[in-house]
Amino acid sequence: MGMTIAEKILAANSGHDSVVPGQLLEVSTSWVLCHEITTPAALRMLEERGMNRVFDPERIVAVPDHSVPAMNIKAAKMYQKLKSWVHENGIRHFFDVGRGGIAHVVLENTGLIKPGETLVSGDSHTCNAGALGAFATGVGSTDLAGAIYAGKVWFKVPETMLIRVTGEMQPGTTPKDIVLEVIKRIGADGANYMVMEWVGDTIDRMDMEGRFTLTNMAIEAGGKTGIVAVDDVTRDYLAARGVTPDQYTEFTSDPDAHYKVVIDVDASKVEPTVAYPHIPSNGRVAGSDKIAVTHAYVGSCTNGRISDLREVANILRDRKIADGVQMIVVPATQAIWKQAAQEGLMEIFVDAGASVSYPSCGACLGMHSGVLGPGDVCISSSNRNFVGRMGDPSAEIYLASPATVAASAVNGFISDPRDFLAAGAAD
Amino acid sequence: MGMTIAEKILAANSGHDSVVPGQLLEVSTSWVLCHEITTPAALRMLEERGMNRVFDPERIVAVPDHSVPAMNIKAAKMYQKLKSWVHENGIRHFFDVGRGGIAHVVLENTGLIKPGETLVSGDSHTCNAGALGAFATGVGSTDLAGAIYAGKVWFKVPETMLIRVTGEMQPGTTPKDIVLEVIKRIGADGANYMVMEWVGDTIDRMDMEGRFTLTNMAIEAGGKTGIVAVDDVTRDYLAARGVTPDQYTEFTSDPDAHYKVVIDVDASKVEPTVAYPHIPSNGRVAGSDKIAVTHAYVGSCTNGRISDLREVANILRDRKIADGVQMIVVPATQAIWKQAAQEGLMEIFVDAGASVSYPSCGACLGMHSGVLGPGDVCISSSNRNFVGRMGDPSAEIYLASPATVAASAVNGFISDPRDFLAAGAAD
Repeated sequence: MGMTIAEKILAANSGHDSVVPGQLLEVSTSWVLCHEITTPAALRMLEERGMNRVFDPERIVAVPDHSVPAMNIKAAKMYQKLKSWVHENGIRHFFDVGRGGIAHVVLENTGLIKPGETLVSGDSHTCNAGALGAFATGVGSTDLAGAIYAGKVWFKVPETMLIRVTGEMQPGTTPKDIVLEVIKRIGADGANYMVMEWVGDTIDRMDMEGRFTLTNMAIEAGGKTGIVAVDDVTRDYLAARGVTPDQYTEFTSDPDAHYKVVIDVDASKVEPTVAYPHIPSNGRVAGSDKIAVTHAYVGSCTNGRISDLREVANILRDRKIADGVQMIVVPATQAIWKQAAQEGLMEIFVDAGASVSYPSCGACLGMHSGVLGPGDVCISSSNRNFVGRMGDPSAEIYLASPATVAASAVNGFISDPRDFLAAGAAD
Repeated sequence: MGMTIAEKILAANSGHDSVVPGQLLEVSTSWVLCHEITTPAALRMLEERGMNRVFDPERIVAVPDHSVPAMNIKAAKMYQKLKSWVHENGIRHFFDVGRGGIAHVVLENTGLIKPGETLVSGDSHTCNAGALGAFATGVGSTDLAGAIYAGKVWFKVPETMLIRVTGEMQPGTTPKDIVLEVIKRIGADGANYMVMEWVGDTIDRMDMEGRFTLTNMAIEAGGKTGIVAVDDVTRDYLAARGVTPDQYTEFTSDPDAHYKVVIDVDASKVEPTVAYPHIPSNGRVAGSDKIAVTHAYVGSCTNGRISDLREVANILRDRKIADGVQMIVVPATQAIWKQAAQEGLMEIFVDAGASVSYPSCGACLGMHSGVLGPGDVCISSSNRNFVGRMGDPSAEIYLASPATVAASAVNGFISDPRDFLAAGAAD
């Protein structure tokens, strides 16, 4: 029987010729990504056992991103812990505050993680990197400790779900809408412990930024990871980062690969979608109901990339955010931040009345820089709308594309971005 | 006997022809400035007494700035409290998140506060506005409650200290160095309950941004406020904000006015000055000792203005911040943020490895966005270096000009900015 991409990657990284779903493997980790929130707990475990070492300092990427610049003294200590560990162990791939940003987005841009490789991190959105044809997944602090120490992790080979997306996306519809539509159809547990493999002509035409948005959200359907096969889009993206095909292995799913589930999506019929509280599968068409918002958030590892910021700027240009709405724009990395500044997007955001933050996970998980209070209503480009995710348990979070967030911020209520496309630039 | 400017303003705003130091007055408040940290406490006092009203909704300026975008749920509630009070009372001068910034710097730019007027706020750096020839001072929450309710506040007429600054400031020396030098000479209690009146040819040539830095720091010498008489620099600044001389009263100190203390400063002899821990009066010449820093902070109501950012950019241009140093640049207002973006300063900061934050008081008082951990050492353009001010009690804070902060960030240790002026642009 043939294998899927994910199965082939797991086989290649565990010394097997072939593997089958359900099989337990000891997999070599090509990369371990470490941030300041979960890594200190893993390091403590190692220290308590006298096992304080790293399997390969060249294969660890450290990026503080959740609570830096430190939001309080405790956060400062966690950052110090990560930083001193990095220095003590000669970890060169350290993206310090001001040189990095949100870990997943920093990593995808480094050219370090390559097709065919494996990646673990103590963070559930590690699946993000699957868009590069790698097997990337989040693990708990214990598994993270093992990976840091031994460069190994145990996996049960996941089943794979095939998501075939065909047809032309309509103006106003974005990859975020596609993934919200898929999660709506399959449910927030619809891909439990499965690999979500994205194929189809819509994906073929999609740029890497859109693909990262798709694979990033795998965990929101319960997926072990998301993945996209390497093609010219991937190759060009890597080439721009100095990575040539001889440096990586391209795996493709066999024609007779086994898929536990196959989903077909007609992209031309997907409309701008908003996931209502309190679960990402609760999708409805944007603007179905007139829901007033107090907060609008653009950012996160899901949607804080330059293409996202451009979409937001296109809507905010020469417009103002509605009175009473607090909008925060958070470029995912320093490089994206700079790019946005160079393109003049920053002035558009500030003219419209938005705050622009340093790169950070802050508001996405209610940690700082935009925490919601009681009864607040936020339209957000992030990935999770669970109760209390962004702050007070009585606050409501609506997930959407950056374009929908921008349209809603201008109107003051959740809105369909297509209304703005039709209107063109403001007078 | 003649009167000083401050005495004349207090007399005019309390219905007296003349006043003398020590006299108790009931003074009308032209303006009350409200932020989200101290105002809720004042409002609670009023509510508990059934006195929930504002003396004049047109004379209150509300600017959330300390903990917004909300750093936690408690901060979100305080912001909500300020915002709902603003709406319930028809307060039009509300600078919401994304439309304002640090309250003192927002206010100085509005054209609302004018020469000859009085201002109180529940914030110690309210003295900032004294540079406009107004009497501006911080008060506790009880006095703030009274001012909100009645538009009145009780003051004992302060003595006045005359600070005469003459001579040409040397390259690399800034108004921040002048005020650090003065506080070094008189001590952190050297101006206790006095008005610090700045005069002299150096002040005459100084732009408004520099003057605000001087008056802002009055409280760091124990001063009741700082003040500068109106001149063409003031008039031009106000005219650019739509305020004409017929809209305000210019007071000047009489030739025979009584000064409790007179200080003479030769500006040509002031060198770049750094206030060592843990008191602003502990000044030494920048670079006297080779002190390694972990953090560099540019911002605050003292030094987060466009001229400050330009000085920093001049040093950071084509240079990198030293490894291991975390630098944060915080433009004081959204307008300054935008101006810096338009001038291309933002790219310089990010290229050098600095984080640029939304406008906020955050790191200055250890609240968020750059809190110091144990043993951290910060060179800071802010105003206070007390134990624990910016985070952990074991952290050390060195106060300096933005130029000195930038030079130190590049070198990794506290440095004299004149070394960079001599070197010119980096190769």
